Amino acid sequence: MSDFATQSGAVTEWIERYLGNPEAYPVLAPVRPGDIAAGLPAEAPEDPEDFQSVLADFDRIIIPGITHWNHPRFFAYFGVSATPEGILAETLSATLNVNAMLWRTSPSATELEEVTLRWLGRLLGFPDDFHGVIYDTASIGGFTALAAARESLGLEIRQRGMAGRDLPALRLYITEHTHSHIEKAAIALGLGRDNVVTVGCDDRNQMLPNELEKKIRADIASGMRPMCVVATIGTTSTTSVDPVAPIARIAKDLGVWLHVDAAYAGVTAMLPEFRRHFAGIEDADSIVLNPHKWMFVPVDCSVLYVRDLGALQRTFSLVADYLVTPEEGVRNGMNYGLQLGRRFRALKLWFVLRTLGAKQIRSKLRDHIALAQELATWIENEPHWELMAPHPFSVVCFRHKPPGMPEEQLDVHNYAIIEAVNATGKVFLSSTKLDGRVVLRLSIGNIRTKRDDVALAWRLLRDAALQGTSAA
Amino acid sequence: MSDFATQSGAVTEWIERYLGNPEAYPVLAPVRPGDIAAGLPAEAPEDPEDFQSVLADFDRIIIPGITHWNHPRFFAYFGVSATPEGILAETLSATLNVNAMLWRTSPSATELEEVTLRWLGRLLGFPDDFHGVIYDTASIGGFTALAAARESLGLEIRQRGMAGRDLPALRLYITEHTHSHIEKAAIALGLGRDNVVTVGCDDRNQMLPNELEKKIRADIASGMRPMCVVATIGTTSTTSVDPVAPIARIAKDLGVWLHVDAAYAGVTAMLPEFRRHFAGIEDADSIVLNPHKWMFVPVDCSVLYVRDLGALQRTFSLVADYLVTPEEGVRNGMNYGLQLGRRFRALKLWFVLRTLGAKQIRSKLRDHIALAQELATWIENEPHWELMAPHPFSVVCFRHKPPGMPEEQLDVHNYAIIEAVNATGKVFLSSTKLDGRVVLRLSIGNIRTKRDDVALAWRLLRDAALQGTSAA
Repeated sequence: MSDFATQSGAVTEWIERYLGNPEAYPVLAPVRPGDIAAGLPAEAPEDPEDFQSVLADFDRIIIPGITHWNHPRFFAYFGVSATPEGILAETLSATLNVNAMLWRTSPSATELEEVTLRWLGRLLGFPDDFHGVIYDTASIGGFTALAAARESLGLEIRQRGMAGRDLPALRLYITEHTHSHIEKAAIALGLGRDNVVTVGCDDRNQMLPNELEKKIRADIASGMRPMCVVATIGTTSTTSVDPVAPIARIAKDLGVWLHVDAAYAGVTAMLPEFRRHFAGIEDADSIVLNPHKWMFVPVDCSVLYVRDLGALQRTFSLVADYLVTPEEGVRNGMNYGLQLGRRFRALKLWFVLRTLGAKQIRSKLRDHIALAQELATWIENEPHWELMAPHPFSVVCFRHKPPGMPEEQLDVHNYAIIEAVNATGKVFLSSTKLDGRVVLRLSIGNIRTKRDDVALAWRLLRDAALQGTSAA
Repeated sequence: MSDFATQSGAVTEWIERYLGNPEAYPVLAPVRPGDIAAGLPAEAPEDPEDFQSVLADFDRIIIPGITHWNHPRFFAYFGVSATPEGILAETLSATLNVNAMLWRTSPSATELEEVTLRWLGRLLGFPDDFHGVIYDTASIGGFTALAAARESLGLEIRQRGMAGRDLPALRLYITEHTHSHIEKAAIALGLGRDNVVTVGCDDRNQMLPNELEKKIRADIASGMRPMCVVATIGTTSTTSVDPVAPIARIAKDLGVWLHVDAAYAGVTAMLPEFRRHFAGIEDADSIVLNPHKWMFVPVDCSVLYVRDLGALQRTFSLVADYLVTPEEGVRNGMNYGLQLGRRFRALKLWFVLRTLGAKQIRSKLRDHIALAQELATWIENEPHWELMAPHPFSVVCFRHKPPGMPEEQLDVHNYAIIEAVNATGKVFLSSTKLDGRVVLRLSIGNIRTKRDDVALAWRLLRDAALQGTSAA
């Protein structure tokens, strides 16, 4: 057996054991800051070390400091979890190790990306004239969309820049529930936080289109330039859904770019019964969704669909002499964003789509959503617990409100509950704030999560609440 | 045997065969645009397909459209090639599938990144107060550095933006040899191409510090605001080296951020005899180098070192309610850039550093550099061929100049040579332009490249030149 076969066999054994039973580990790494670094030497070795000993150190030193996103009771943030087939596709991609910056530097990477994103677009019911591009993260996809929105204003910003000339302030419209990567993009693109306009929401945390229109018109009246509105399908805190159709009408009327952030919930467009959330999507200029989130593709694989691929190219394309190629009319990936280097990410998307099949993906999404809905009924029916927001997908926001505890103590009490359950190592939840109040947030999205896992989390939460109440 | 073990075994066999003999494939994929897409169905499958048949399709449909960056005669652009141990580390990283956005979401990923980058910084002889961060690409690392440079101007751009207020034009200084990702960053950051100032070079393609100083002073005199100068150690076309020490003095005197792009040649700081190129590096504000390029780590793994990590944080940190964690004083990766999502990239860097060891890395770099120097002497000693630029590292620029052929025909002639040798499938070279003239460029950096490979390329080039000349 070759060295590689031996090494790969050892890695395979490790993975088999690990993925066969991720519950064997505490979900949240039970280490203190500095613990892992302290176990490592101060210098790189001069001489080669044996692969087996590095693998042993991986298990001994690195694994104790891993928070296990694979654990079926990882309920924090949004789950990401991958199928074994997706992992092996990533191995093949690392083996080929191509940089798909140009068509000729990897024709298959470019063309498989186009084909798989057409497949995905059809599963999602997106119009055929949406063109997809894979990026590493939703942060980059959203940034790229906003950069294209800026260039589309016709102010020649690519050429002339934004400073040292007389330009109106460029305005971006979001809600308090819009993901922070959008505001980061506004910072990077030189809009400034002051020009990120927060539009109010209704009591379901959904953007109020009337208020959006009023704010845009007021900005125009004061000489500012509305650039882009971001509607979210599945916000991070509560998975609320901004009403895309009326927002799209306003955006169209007033000449504003509409970007839809559906990083988490975008995949639910595969479910006919959820299509209603996507009404108006055909009028969006750009939309982001993450197959690496809730479609069981290993990170990183985020998709940006745009109606006008040329808008990305007009923003970003720069062809240096050393990147000129003779092929004409081909898609050169480097032209659609900031990054010249591009990994072969379509490969894992292709492996996962084929080995799961669309039916299984839909059924997994429905299972997760059903579990979240069931949890919501448990919470609703339990005295002294309250749901804190609607729960259209697979995330539930709630808190414990013991009888007689004044409002100002509830935040500390609920933080204590979450830290207590996380410290058990059996579950991992994260929190957020709604209307300034601390809220527990249980998010279901891991491919291994079953009803018993959610039930155990619910039991641990009630236990911690009881102890927190009796201790108080 | 479990399904996973069977599947992983099949993948291992495939990789063994592939990496055992990448010469079996044409370097440059011999397909026409659309060929690969044509072999794929129009829709994703509804039902799951067998892993073995997907793997078979990978071999049958995808591989013919792969340009083999693993091939020992891949001489185009800059080589990227990875060790098998690096590939297996990537498998483990895809298995753990963590998002290292926060310390708590993967303490080991954060701390291993700090430790391995300290190791690397020491191998490179960088000052201990340089702090490293891993990004996906040099494009993002460079962009991040320039964003920090912009924020460090004290103009409150993060908060107030660049438009709708009275700001001077922000100026960026580069040379015609600076990599295109820097100009893309200037576009994205709202500087505009008009404010990217090209400083002249000497006849070795190195920035002229006097001219830099003059241009900066002239800009200040006309009320503009110099923001950043980019010095490159190892430019893309010719691997020329801008003189960092005098540039650093000017930057310091005039309050301009100095970013050093050493994406390709940065690793040569590991070689004492090349340290001279890095004189002055301790005065840089930021420096990028790519372990995924010439240090045999699978893409993507690019490193940004900065003196003031706080500058990145002041530019990018935004902590949403749903991302608040109780740990204090820890490094939360999301605070240092645009991207919230962060793969566990330090793992492959750690595996490669340990299983190769520093000595082997140095010796590989020296081998590649020696091969390039030998090729340069072959070219120099061959009638009707000419070297077109100095060749301090592992890249040689040259062209064929047949007797009597007028200058205006040489570009077409040399393009024809390169297309002819690339069409053999035995080598892959890329071209560039210097002073407006087409130049062949042979870049050595693949871990498998040996003297015979370079000799074969040289023979094929001479054959093609001869045929091109007799055909003309």
